[in-house]
Amino acid sequence: MLRQFDTELDTLKQQILRMGGKAEAMIQNSVQALVQRDITIADNIPELEEEVNRLQLEIDDLCFKSLALRQPMAHDLRFIIAAMKISSDLERIADQSVNILENTKILLEFPEVKPLIDIPKMAEIAKGMVRDALDALVDGDASKAREIVLRDDMVDALKNQVFRELLTYMISDPRTIQAGLQLILVARHLERVADHATNIAEDVVYMVEAKDIRHHAEDEDHGDSETRN
Amino acid sequence: MLRQFDTELDTLKQQILRMGGKAEAMIQNSVQALVQRDITIADNIPELEEEVNRLQLEIDDLCFKSLALRQPMAHDLRFIIAAMKISSDLERIADQSVNILENTKILLEFPEVKPLIDIPKMAEIAKGMVRDALDALVDGDASKAREIVLRDDMVDALKNQVFRELLTYMISDPRTIQAGLQLILVARHLERVADHATNIAEDVVYMVEAKDIRHHAEDEDHGDSETRN
Repeated sequence: MLRQFDTELDTLKQQILRMGGKAEAMIQNSVQALVQRDITIADNIPELEEEVNRLQLEIDDLCFKSLALRQPMAHDLRFIIAAMKISSDLERIADQSVNILENTKILLEFPEVKPLIDIPKMAEIAKGMVRDALDALVDGDASKAREIVLRDDMVDALKNQVFRELLTYMISDPRTIQAGLQLILVARHLERVADHATNIAEDVVYMVEAKDIRHHAEDEDHGDSETRN
Repeated sequence: MLRQFDTELDTLKQQILRMGGKAEAMIQNSVQALVQRDITIADNIPELEEEVNRLQLEIDDLCFKSLALRQPMAHDLRFIIAAMKISSDLERIADQSVNILENTKILLEFPEVKPLIDIPKMAEIAKGMVRDALDALVDGDASKAREIVLRDDMVDALKNQVFRELLTYMISDPRTIQAGLQLILVARHLERVADHATNIAEDVVYMVEAKDIRHHAEDEDHGDSETRN
């Protein structure tokens, strides 16, 4: 019986990794479409979103069945609880990339405000956080997970920089207001991706160490402190 | 033994209601501070936020213990799973009010753009959704919960209206750009509150009917479709 349950937990882990891979691809494609001003790069996003949603339902169903039928204890129980939370965060990451795609569609109706540097940088860091958080899950590596939480500050700092810079453009040339606003919203969405990756990393620490690090870390960041100009 | 477990589940429900009451008060106070341009109205928000965070940890801990020690089945199991998800949504609702407070602080450095009408309306609807979703939880009322999901569209429509209107102001008078951007972000945060209330309502349906209505509803709204002007 134990061996059978181990197989189930392994399936659960595989499903989370598949979901994570798709969420990452969605971020990648939506930001590439934005940077290269080519919406066709994001053509597969609706399909990926459906797969992500389906995987979330499957993962939650697997978790429910494991809880109901296996009465897991200790580490297994924490893993299942973490899996439910992680699937929810991955689904919200996918949603953010859909939001970025919507912003991009509007943006492309307007001339380019400026070459994008910080937004692709934010996307790289945020994607890396998602990938590494899932690696930490697979490896059961709490110290790697803790390191991810720290990277959230870099993303916040970049977001503030993007806000400041775009506001300067918008104020000096009102023709850039609409496109500038969309870029500000994209930066917000990427910041949310990093927040969700941080949640995942915290769940990994909880799973490995049975320790809840939410609301404790020095670098905790609830508010947004949307930057003034 | 059963009776003891019932008491535990009741405690869990009470803690969720307390958490919900605090999250609602935070939305109320942050939006009032904005509307009345008086930051002191929001003075208790940091304290409320701490209480919300503490309640989330307590709720999650109660859920873990119930899962580990009581091996709940069927409705009880679904209730505990829903409770974990709801505490996470309530915590994020509280975060949104902290975000609104940050926006308000910046906003008050600038002259008033316009009297606020739609933003307080959005806040009223979103708060009502949170309250009613928790009522539906207490009453185990799936049909009330389904009705809440529908209200999300109203909030989205108002957000689009706020975006459109503020963009018009910002384009015609660049001196309103900074304050206008903060108001746009506030509208975004309120939209997120309504999204979280929708999640809670979906969790109530799941608990009562053992039916997962996420990713199925006709009125599902992933993307943002930030409105163009």
